[in-house]
Amino acid sequence: MSEKKPQNSLITMNELVLPNDTNTLNNLMGGRLLHWMDIAAAISAQKHCNRIVVTASVDNVSFKHPIKLGDVVTIKAKVTRAFTTSVEVRLDVWAENIPSGERVKSNEAYYTFVALDNDGKKVSIHELIPETEEEKELFEGALRRRQLRLILGGKMNPDDATELKALFTAAKQ
Amino acid sequence: MSEKKPQNSLITMNELVLPNDTNTLNNLMGGRLLHWMDIAAAISAQKHCNRIVVTASVDNVSFKHPIKLGDVVTIKAKVTRAFTTSVEVRLDVWAENIPSGERVKSNEAYYTFVALDNDGKKVSIHELIPETEEEKELFEGALRRRQLRLILGGKMNPDDATELKALFTAAKQ
Amino acid sequence: MSEKKPQNSLITMNELVLPNDTNTLNNLMGGRLLHWMDIAAAISAQKHCNRIVVTASVDNVSFKHPIKLGDVVTIKAKVTRAFTTSVEVRLDVWAENIPSGERVKSNEAYYTFVALDNDGKKVSIHELIPETEEEKELFEGALRRRQLRLILGGKMNPDDATELKALFTAAKQ
Amino acid sequence: MSEKKPQNSLITMNELVLPNDTNTLNNLMGGRLLHWMDIAAAISAQKHCNRIVVTASVDNVSFKHPIKLGDVVTIKAKVTRAFTTSVEVRLDVWAENIPSGERVKSNEAYYTFVALDNDGKKVSIHELIPETEEEKELFEGALRRRQLRLILGGKMNPDDATELKALFTAAKQ
Amino acid sequence: MSEKKPQNSLITMNELVLPNDTNTLNNLMGGRLLHWMDIAAAISAQKHCNRIVVTASVDNVSFKHPIKLGDVVTIKAKVTRAFTTSVEVRLDVWAENIPSGERVKSNEAYYTFVALDNDGKKVSIHELIPETEEEKELFEGALRRRQLRLILGGKMNPDDATELKALFTAAKQ
Amino acid sequence: MSEKKPQNSLITMNELVLPNDTNTLNNLMGGRLLHWMDIAAAISAQKHCNRIVVTASVDNVSFKHPIKLGDVVTIKAKVTRAFTTSVEVRLDVWAENIPSGERVKSNEAYYTFVALDNDGKKVSIHELIPETEEEKELFEGALRRRQLRLILGGKMNPDDATELKALFTAAKQ
Repeated sequence: MSEKKPQNSLITMNELVLPNDTNTLNNLMGGRLLHWMDIAAAISAQKHCNRIVVTASVDNVSFKHPIKLGDVVTIKAKVTRAFTTSVEVRLDVWAENIPSGERVKSNEAYYTFVALDNDGKKVSIHELIPETEEEKELFEGALRRRQLRLILGGKMNPDDATELKALFTAAKQ
Repeated sequence: MSEKKPQNSLITMNELVLPNDTNTLNNLMGGRLLHWMDIAAAISAQKHCNRIVVTASVDNVSFKHPIKLGDVVTIKAKVTRAFTTSVEVRLDVWAENIPSGERVKSNEAYYTFVALDNDGKKVSIHELIPETEEEKELFEGALRRRQLRLILGGKMNPDDATELKALFTAAKQ
Repeated sequence: MSEKKPQNSLITMNELVLPNDTNTLNNLMGGRLLHWMDIAAAISAQKHCNRIVVTASVDNVSFKHPIKLGDVVTIKAKVTRAFTTSVEVRLDVWAENIPSGERVKSNEAYYTFVALDNDGKKVSIHELIPETEEEKELFEGALRRRQLRLILGGKMNPDDATELKALFTAAKQ
Repeated sequence: MSEKKPQNSLITMNELVLPNDTNTLNNLMGGRLLHWMDIAAAISAQKHCNRIVVTASVDNVSFKHPIKLGDVVTIKAKVTRAFTTSVEVRLDVWAENIPSGERVKSNEAYYTFVALDNDGKKVSIHELIPETEEEKELFEGALRRRQLRLILGGKMNPDDATELKALFTAAKQ
Repeated sequence: MSEKKPQNSLITMNELVLPNDTNTLNNLMGGRLLHWMDIAAAISAQKHCNRIVVTASVDNVSFKHPIKLGDVVTIKAKVTRAFTTSVEVRLDVWAENIPSGERVKSNEAYYTFVALDNDGKKVSIHELIPETEEEKELFEGALRRRQLRLILGGKMNPDDATELKALFTAAKQ
Repeated sequence: MSEKKPQNSLITMNELVLPNDTNTLNNLMGGRLLHWMDIAAAISAQKHCNRIVVTASVDNVSFKHPIKLGDVVTIKAKVTRAFTTSVEVRLDVWAENIPSGERVKSNEAYYTFVALDNDGKKVSIHELIPETEEEKELFEGALRRRQLRLILGGKMNPDDATELKALFTAAKQ
C-alpha cells in the first residue's frame, strides 16, 4: 500500500448559482451548497483512494454570507489525512460576484468518506504524507476532529478523547 | 411576541430515491440527503418563525447505512429552541425499502436558521415552550450544541462554554 | 393474504415551490403538482401493497387556486380501497404561504396503481378494511369512481354502471 | 374577438425517457408523463389564446402500456373548443422504441386552461371553429366532458347535465 | 441495407423556457439550447438508423437573438446524408413569444452521429435518398461540411478537401 | 480600458457524470457536455470582462471517446483573445475514471461570448495580452477562427478571409 500527497487529491469546482438553487430572497440555499460540497469532496477522496467512496460524515458547517443568484461558487477540496478505511477532506468555499469583482470566503468544512470495493465492502486506503506547513497542521487537527465526531456519534467516551480534551484543559488554566 | 410549541413546527417529508440521487453503487449520495434535510428543516423553521429563513449552520451529520435506489426517505423536523434571532431544528431520518418492509433510522441532525424580513434583515423570533419530556431535553441540549457551534466557528473561547465543559469535566472524575 | 387498514398507508409529503416549478406568473405549474402527487400516491400504494407499483390512472383533477413561488405544498395520501390487483389512493393537497400564515385546500384527487412483482407481472393485493366513518365513505365511493374510469376508458357500458347510474337516477326525480 | 382553427394550436413535443424519469422497473413514471403533457397542452392553449395560460383541470388519464427507459415519447396537443375564459386541449401520446421500431398509442387526455392577462385576471378567448369531421366531433364532445368536470367538481347538479345524461338515458332504454 | 427518405427522420420538439434554463438577464443559456438540440438531433438520427446513436460532432453554431424566459423553442431536425457509419442532421430552431406573437429564426446547425449496436460497436447505416430540391442541396453540402470537420479535427489535409477548396478558389477569381 | 492576462480568466470545473447525464449505453450525452462547457466558458469570459456575458457562438466540437457514468469530467477554460465587444474562450476537456486511473483528453473547443451591461446592451471589453508561447499562438489563431465563423455565418466573403485563406493557399503549392 503506497503513499500519496495532499496535492494529488486537490480538486477545484466552479458552479454558477442558477434560479433553482435559490430561495425567495434569491440567495443560494444552504442544502444546495452542501450537495455541491459533497460532490467536490467525493471526487477529491476518490482521487486519493482510487476507489468508489461514500460519504461517512460532514462536520459542522456554518453559513455566514448570503450567496446570490448569478454568483460563481468556487470549491477547493483536498484530503487532509487517511485513516484505516476512511479519509478526511477539507473544503474551502468562495463566492464571487464577477461583474462587481467582490469575492468572499464563504465556508470551510470537513467531510469524511469510506472507500469501498465493487461489492460495497470497506477497503484499506493509501497513507497520506503531508508536505507543506498548512498540510501538516491539517493532518494533526484531523485526529482531534475525529475524536469529536466519535463523541458526537456516541462511539467514544469524552474522557478518552485525549486530543480534544487538551482544548478544554488548556482553556481551564 | 407570543410563544409557540414544538408541535407547531413539526414537519414530515417523504422522498423517493431516484436514479439521479445515487452514485455508481446505486446508493443515495450524502449531499443529496443533506439538501433534502435542509429543505425540511427550513419549512419547520419557517413554521415557527412565520418568516423567510436562511440556513445558518448544520451540525455534524454521520451516515451509517447505505440508502438504496427506490427506497423511501422519511424526514421529520421539529424546532427544539428559539434564540434571539435564530432557531435550532432537530431532524430524524429513516430509510425504508417498502417491498421488503425493512426500515432503518438513518440520521439525526441539527440545523440552525436565521429569520429575515423582506429586506433581508434579521428579526426577532417567538419563544418556544417545550411540552413533552423529550422536547424539554432537546431544549436543554440546544444550549450545549450552540456553545460547540460557537467554539468551532471561532466565536467563543472554550473556557466560556460552561454547558459544554460539563461534558468533559464530568468525564474527568 | 392478510388485511390492512387505511392508516397503514397514510403518507405526508411537503414540497417547497422553487423557481423551476413555476410559470412566468410565478405560479406552480399544474403538471409539476401532478408529478408530486403521483410520487406521494405511489409511496402510499407501495405501503399498502408491499410491492413495486405503477400508476394505472389519475381521475379528474381541478386546480382552483394559484400556488405561488415559495409556498409550501403539503400532500396527504391514503389508500381508500384495494381491488384484485389495483388500489385507489385519495390525495388531499394544501398550499401554505408560511410568512403570512395563509393556507388553502388546493386539490383533491384519486390515483390508481397496479402492484407488480420483480418481473413486472401483476400480483394480487391485501384487502383494505376501512375503520373511520370517512374511510368507510371513501371505500364505498371507490366502486362508483371505478365504474366511471371503466366507462371513460371504454371498458364498461354505461348501462352496467349500477353504482354510478344511481347518481343520475336520483337526480332525475 | 376573432376566430381561430384547431390547426393553429397543433403542437408536437418529443421527449427522450432518461433515467430520472423512471422507476426501479425502468418504466417512465406516470407523474412525469402528466408533467410533460401539461407543458405540451399549455403551449397549445397559449397558441390559441395568445395569452399566458394556467392549468384549470386534467380529465381522467389512464396508463395502459409501460413506457421504457430510452423510448421516445411523442405528444400531440390541439385545442378542441374555446369557452368564455377557458379552452379544452386534446392530447394524444405515443411511445416508440426506435431501435426495434415498436410504437404504441400510450394515452389520450383532455386538459383545460384559463387565459390570464399580465395581472393574473381572466380574459375572454377567441372562438374556435372546427374544420375536419374529427375536429367537429371533439368540439361537440367538449360540452359533455365539461359537464362531467362541473359535476365532479361539485359545481353542477347531475340533473342539469343535459349532454352527459344522454349517455345514461340512451343506455337505459 | 435498404434506403430511407429525409422525411422519415423529421422530428419536431417544443420546449418551454423555464427559470433554470436562463441567466441573470432572463435569457436562455446557449449551452441549454445546445443540449436540447442534441436530444432532438439524436432522436432524428435514431429514426434514420434504427439504432442507438451517439453524438460525433456539432458544427459551428451561432446565437443571434436572445431567447427569453417563457418563450417556446421549436426545434426541427432532419437527416441530410448518411455516410458509412455516421449521419449528418440539420437543425432549425425558432423562438416564439406566444402572447405577443413574435417568432424569430434563432439557429441553424448540423450535428453528426455514429450508430452503435448493443455492444457499442459501430454499424453501417441505411443510405439516404433526398427527394425535394432543398433536401438535394443539403445532401450535396454535407460533403463539404464533412471535409471542414475533418480538417478542423486534424484528420484531413486542406489540399485534399476538393469540395471545400472550391469555395476559396471560386472566391479568388 | 485596462488590459488583462489569459491567466486571469483561467477556470477549472469538475463534474461527476450522474445517471441523468447518460444515454442507454451509460455514456455521457454530447449535449450535456456542451452545456457544462458553456457554463465553464461563460465563467471564464465573465472573469475577463467583469460583465454579464451571453454565448455568441460555439465552434465545431467533436466527440472522440465515450465518457462513462461515474467518470469525472474536468473542464479548463481560458480567454484567448478579446475583440471589440466579444471574447473567444478555449476549452480543454478530460474524462477520468478514478478507480482505474484512466484519463483521456476528450475535447477541445472554442466558444465566443458578448459582454452586456445591465440593460442588455453590448459593451467594449478589456484588451487581452498573451504571455506564454502557447497563449500567443492561441491569440494569433483566434483571428483565423473568427474569419471562419464569419464566413460560416454568411457575414464575410471567403475572399476577404486573408488569415484563413493562407491555410488553403499554402496547401495548394
